[in-house]
Amino acid sequence: MTESTIAPAEVGHVACIGAGVIGGGWVAHFLARGYRVTAWDPADDAAEKLHRLVELAWPALTELGLAEGASRENLTVAATLEDAVAEAEFVQESAPEDLDLKRDLLARIDAATPAGVVISSSTSGFTMTEMQDRCPTPQRLVVGHPFNPPYLIPLVEVVGGESTEDWAVRWASEFFEVAGKSVITMDREVPGFIANRLQEAIWREALHMVANGEATVEQIDASITEGPGLRWPLFGPCLTFHLAGGEGGMAHMLDHFGPSLKAPWTRLEAPELTSELRDRMVDGCEEASGGRPIPELVAERDQAVIAVMRAMQQVRGTR
Amino acid sequence: MTESTIAPAEVGHVACIGAGVIGGGWVAHFLARGYRVTAWDPADDAAEKLHRLVELAWPALTELGLAEGASRENLTVAATLEDAVAEAEFVQESAPEDLDLKRDLLARIDAATPAGVVISSSTSGFTMTEMQDRCPTPQRLVVGHPFNPPYLIPLVEVVGGESTEDWAVRWASEFFEVAGKSVITMDREVPGFIANRLQEAIWREALHMVANGEATVEQIDASITEGPGLRWPLFGPCLTFHLAGGEGGMAHMLDHFGPSLKAPWTRLEAPELTSELRDRMVDGCEEASGGRPIPELVAERDQAVIAVMRAMQQVRGTR
Repeated sequence: MTESTIAPAEVGHVACIGAGVIGGGWVAHFLARGYRVTAWDPADDAAEKLHRLVELAWPALTELGLAEGASRENLTVAATLEDAVAEAEFVQESAPEDLDLKRDLLARIDAATPAGVVISSSTSGFTMTEMQDRCPTPQRLVVGHPFNPPYLIPLVEVVGGESTEDWAVRWASEFFEVAGKSVITMDREVPGFIANRLQEAIWREALHMVANGEATVEQIDASITEGPGLRWPLFGPCLTFHLAGGEGGMAHMLDHFGPSLKAPWTRLEAPELTSELRDRMVDGCEEASGGRPIPELVAERDQAVIAVMRAMQQVRGTR
Repeated sequence: MTESTIAPAEVGHVACIGAGVIGGGWVAHFLARGYRVTAWDPADDAAEKLHRLVELAWPALTELGLAEGASRENLTVAATLEDAVAEAEFVQESAPEDLDLKRDLLARIDAATPAGVVISSSTSGFTMTEMQDRCPTPQRLVVGHPFNPPYLIPLVEVVGGESTEDWAVRWASEFFEVAGKSVITMDREVPGFIANRLQEAIWREALHMVANGEATVEQIDASITEGPGLRWPLFGPCLTFHLAGGEGGMAHMLDHFGPSLKAPWTRLEAPELTSELRDRMVDGCEEASGGRPIPELVAERDQAVIAVMRAMQQVRGTR
């Protein structure tokens, strides 16, 4: 199969298959970025729900700044899947998480989509290798995993399956960047990708705590919104802990808290803290922080926490 | 043992034992809230490091707004532990995470602290039951677990040990509230408390991914800062997923993604999604959201995400 003939930056027309919370969120995002969007969803009330979702998202998108030419008028709801993708220059599939359904649906999409057009799936956890095996041209299928709501959260994780060709992964990553997303391109398939594995670990621990009566839903949420949740928008878990080690950074943190790693603090088993893993974390933090000294990072983190707290006070104050 | 004779709101003098990143952070916090603080730390360069930490924190604290009478001049570094606590009306211990060290240290603190004064430990994971057994009056010892940096992150988790009396837990919770913290009072000891269990689950999954070469430190951090980390400052993991279910909320989310719970998305084993757990989550979200309808929550979340993204852009823009 040959590489797509259209450049990522030249795409003007996107098809969205499936128009629930995620698919509809993609529709809102692409509309706001100035694309023409053709959507299709088998549900009877899909068009109505989709329009409601776009209405609900539009004030936020307007506030963020619409792209030139962006308009809700650029949305067409197609009568069939085949109509929806017939002239698409990119296709995003966001059907329910049902492997068999997705395998069939992606095969149908693939059969109906013009040659060379990249098809991306919003799946939250299936690998493309599992999903692409019924497709006539699986080479152009990738995972493009967004976060809710896709019209606001920048992250998209891009990864191909065994039958995906490299150009499709590259094309999709570039397209998503052009379309205003933050892209993580993965070089291998990992169930749940990256962010879902991390948030799923939190989620499962939370469910265990609620199941055991150790904490309530309200306590769990407060423990994040009043605690680590205020730090993560700036630095993420690694650089956050880089700052927990004082001026010694990640190295001191791992050497000091290393033994606690085995403590029964979560039901998730700890990995062996080998010297190799230790070095990988230390070097990774050095790299991710651009080698900036800890006091500079601390000052920036403090600014970020204050800004986040103020923003939350303002948002909550308008209730 | 009788209840403390001083009311939480009347405390003017606090002792901080241990002055590393956490202990020093507490010192900065209490100074900014207008308390007189006496600190002690056995390290030779403790006073110098402590002053540097307070200096580094003070601009952020000033920006947030200092309490009346707040001044760095209100800090005394004592020559001995006994001097430090002799006139304290509240004691916060923040020694390294070493159980034996903490057991001895808390016993020394307890022996030297005036009767009826509450003593709190910053331990990130030991239970007070484990730590208080060498104390002459263990009734007044509680865990008051902060988050780094304690001068900014509001959360404190308060919980007693088996020998702790209820009044001490109540007193400490009230005192921390008065001192400007957000308090979660736990009714039982759980290793790692609540927030640490949640962030430890993320952390271990991240370490596993790095150890296996599945993701780099930079990808892990970006997957949070560009993804779920933008949602958590407002709602926490439970209400965030309440919104992932569309207008059906947590109930629809669990019914739809329930089967995915068993998927190999993290090394943490999933709990059984019993109907009891399901109902507890659904009811908990209803309660935690104050019964507000989903579209209202969605609009609020969108405002929060935009505010957080803008704040981060601004902070990063000044690099």
